[in-house]
Amino acid sequence: MKKLVLALTLLPTLALHAQPSDSAQIRRVYNEILANGKSYAWLRQLTKDVGPRLSGSAGSQKAVEWAKKTMEAEGFDRVFLQEVKVPHWVRGAKEQARILVGNQKIDVPIAALGGSVATPAAGITAEVIEVKSFPELRALGREKVAGKLIFFNRPMDPTKLNTFEAYAGAVDQRAAGATEAAKLGAVGVIVRSMNPSLDDFPHTGGLRYGTGVALIPAAAISTNGAELLSARLKQSPNLNFFFQQSCETLDDATGHNVVGELRGSEKPDEIIVVGGHLDSWDLAEGAHDDGAGCVQAIEVLRTLKALGLRPRRTIRAVLFANEENGLRGGVKYADLAKQNGEKHVYAIESDNGGFTPRGFGIVGIDAQVAQLVRFKPLLAPYGLHEIGRGSGGADIGPLGPLGTVLVGFKPDTQRYFDIHHAATDTFETVSERELKLGAASMAALVVLLDALP
Amino acid sequence: MKKLVLALTLLPTLALHAQPSDSAQIRRVYNEILANGKSYAWLRQLTKDVGPRLSGSAGSQKAVEWAKKTMEAEGFDRVFLQEVKVPHWVRGAKEQARILVGNQKIDVPIAALGGSVATPAAGITAEVIEVKSFPELRALGREKVAGKLIFFNRPMDPTKLNTFEAYAGAVDQRAAGATEAAKLGAVGVIVRSMNPSLDDFPHTGGLRYGTGVALIPAAAISTNGAELLSARLKQSPNLNFFFQQSCETLDDATGHNVVGELRGSEKPDEIIVVGGHLDSWDLAEGAHDDGAGCVQAIEVLRTLKALGLRPRRTIRAVLFANEENGLRGGVKYADLAKQNGEKHVYAIESDNGGFTPRGFGIVGIDAQVAQLVRFKPLLAPYGLHEIGRGSGGADIGPLGPLGTVLVGFKPDTQRYFDIHHAATDTFETVSERELKLGAASMAALVVLLDALP
Repeated sequence: MKKLVLALTLLPTLALHAQPSDSAQIRRVYNEILANGKSYAWLRQLTKDVGPRLSGSAGSQKAVEWAKKTMEAEGFDRVFLQEVKVPHWVRGAKEQARILVGNQKIDVPIAALGGSVATPAAGITAEVIEVKSFPELRALGREKVAGKLIFFNRPMDPTKLNTFEAYAGAVDQRAAGATEAAKLGAVGVIVRSMNPSLDDFPHTGGLRYGTGVALIPAAAISTNGAELLSARLKQSPNLNFFFQQSCETLDDATGHNVVGELRGSEKPDEIIVVGGHLDSWDLAEGAHDDGAGCVQAIEVLRTLKALGLRPRRTIRAVLFANEENGLRGGVKYADLAKQNGEKHVYAIESDNGGFTPRGFGIVGIDAQVAQLVRFKPLLAPYGLHEIGRGSGGADIGPLGPLGTVLVGFKPDTQRYFDIHHAATDTFETVSERELKLGAASMAALVVLLDALP
Repeated sequence: MKKLVLALTLLPTLALHAQPSDSAQIRRVYNEILANGKSYAWLRQLTKDVGPRLSGSAGSQKAVEWAKKTMEAEGFDRVFLQEVKVPHWVRGAKEQARILVGNQKIDVPIAALGGSVATPAAGITAEVIEVKSFPELRALGREKVAGKLIFFNRPMDPTKLNTFEAYAGAVDQRAAGATEAAKLGAVGVIVRSMNPSLDDFPHTGGLRYGTGVALIPAAAISTNGAELLSARLKQSPNLNFFFQQSCETLDDATGHNVVGELRGSEKPDEIIVVGGHLDSWDLAEGAHDDGAGCVQAIEVLRTLKALGLRPRRTIRAVLFANEENGLRGGVKYADLAKQNGEKHVYAIESDNGGFTPRGFGIVGIDAQVAQLVRFKPLLAPYGLHEIGRGSGGADIGPLGPLGTVLVGFKPDTQRYFDIHHAATDTFETVSERELKLGAASMAALVVLLDALP
């Protein structure tokens, strides 16, 4: 620590003669963000004043206005919108669901999956078949499945260290369960929430209907609800389940990517993107998913300006539209980049929550990955030990084919799926320091990338 | 991951011919704890059924009974108590405090510091002098300080990456502020809570009175309260502050260390300790501090038993008495170890919260440190990257002079001081997965240490 303090003390002098070292620059970035950072205050505005902001909603429009105004107030060189048509799905009235056993009616919390169709207005009542996988479902055959509700109840694997692996191992039930069940004549689908913990909050998320198959309604049930339903089914295999939801897909709406820019002093045509997605599910404040990524991206640009670090390349904060149920914002951004002949050298996305930083995952050729891995000694003192080949981010993905190196900011994964896509994804679950350290990690990486020849 | 799964699949066969590799053993430990661990359920009992458990309190006695019963129910080879005399400080009635400006009375949240004396029954009302450091206080001199309340308001430094460094840089105000102020004739002390965040909860903690100096009452004020008092003092330097507390120190009480043991099969006389402290401050459920460490220690032994891993050395879970305001449990444990000629080879403590694991800090000679650093390739896949010389833990400290290698389990530090010693240190702030990963980190290290020649 002493050496860095010395370096900082000497900065005003050094600046006249030479560039301060990379390690001193990184220390300045962290100091600025930890002492004066605005990301936490911005996140409070985005989650509490704006709130939920699913594509097509009034909240989504309000979020765009908030983001534009916030970046303009910071005096970035340029702030602009990119218009994009986005899906417009609405939940409608709060869903109802209950287990019916004899004379008993036990209410359980459910939430329609994003993109699902409604039930008939009076709801659906049917017998339930619990399965853990698609093979198990198919083995039952049409005769047993037709006319029934299929209850997908395979939990996230708790032994996976990285919860994203556990999610990847369970989310087929949510994404394709309705289609697989409909192929065999099921009338609806109930999916155990993608939540490693036991609680009373259903976790929504997108589904994909296959073509040529009936569209049947699908909902997530809370993990406690799933445990209860499973236990009751063991006692009463012929019990009935009732659920009612009135969601629908309207005509596409107009959404916007919001872009803030600091123009490069030496290579303005080379662009480095830092981004997150501005939309959230309708149930949630979207604090971790992905308010955190948005405010961190803005904070990166604010910090460069505050420290007088004029970047050599153009740095953009991009708040993408419609990650949750369409990815139209990311696709549009890449389309426009191609159309305008823009050269995006790096794109960094934060969309894994505002948790304590662990590292970066890189998508690129070996030499590109190796170049970032060489930053390890500079970043490990800040807890960024896990730098290597990995996944980038959904929104920046479409830039990959244009030759952009994609970088995913990787925070600790342990708490993310407890609150992912649920009403529990609130501002209160975000740690100010963890959020700021995420912003600092991204800002430090931008400083290092910008300094590359 | 594939390789480990393969290793696990082959285990039953391998066990007949050879020891499974260290990496396979570690994987088994993590799987057991993540899938079947009991630490979270135990923590719920300790925080909700037992609750606060300051030395000498009824809660403290209840905690000892709970710990003994819990370890006995797990069928450890031996469970026993070590009696120890502990300080017995009581808070008394809830403290009162207010800022008095003209006709205005503004209530602010305070909590007496542990070990503080009471105010006179009617409370103290006096003018306030705000200082940021002892040198600043001393520069004022007796003339300005005598008869006044001293308000220590130096925040924890937000630019320190490790919050324990920020704590170390601010806690002199809490520990010695009363003595330093009394030397100059002050009548009481108000200390800004050791909390990096702004909220309404005072954080208590121990103070030490110097000898030969008047004992003046001292209390912590919430960080929001400190900000308000500071702002009001800028407007009205002669405002008055009132506070009232009725805490007192009673005669020493009887407390207990609780010890559970699995006897070693090959070297039973060599002991490895895993521990935490069973006491907590009276304001708090003591979930992170240090309920987490206690249930993790018990979980290490449970896991070895559940996996049929008969240790070569004797493994002890030690739940120490009285870490918060005396350290008598740790001192007693080492005294008895010396008296009984016990050989403690390693002692591991978890007392930095039940947060996501980062590594281990080691106290020992260079060769001992190097030996643990060699485990890095086995532990880094589990997020344990920071293994090296560091601090052990308060309770195991007294074992150091007996030649024991001391190891501090190091979780992420970002959220700890938000809740440390405050009413906000509740079960609800603990992540089940983070807690379990901490237990697994300690269990994995015990397995590796036990396998050393």
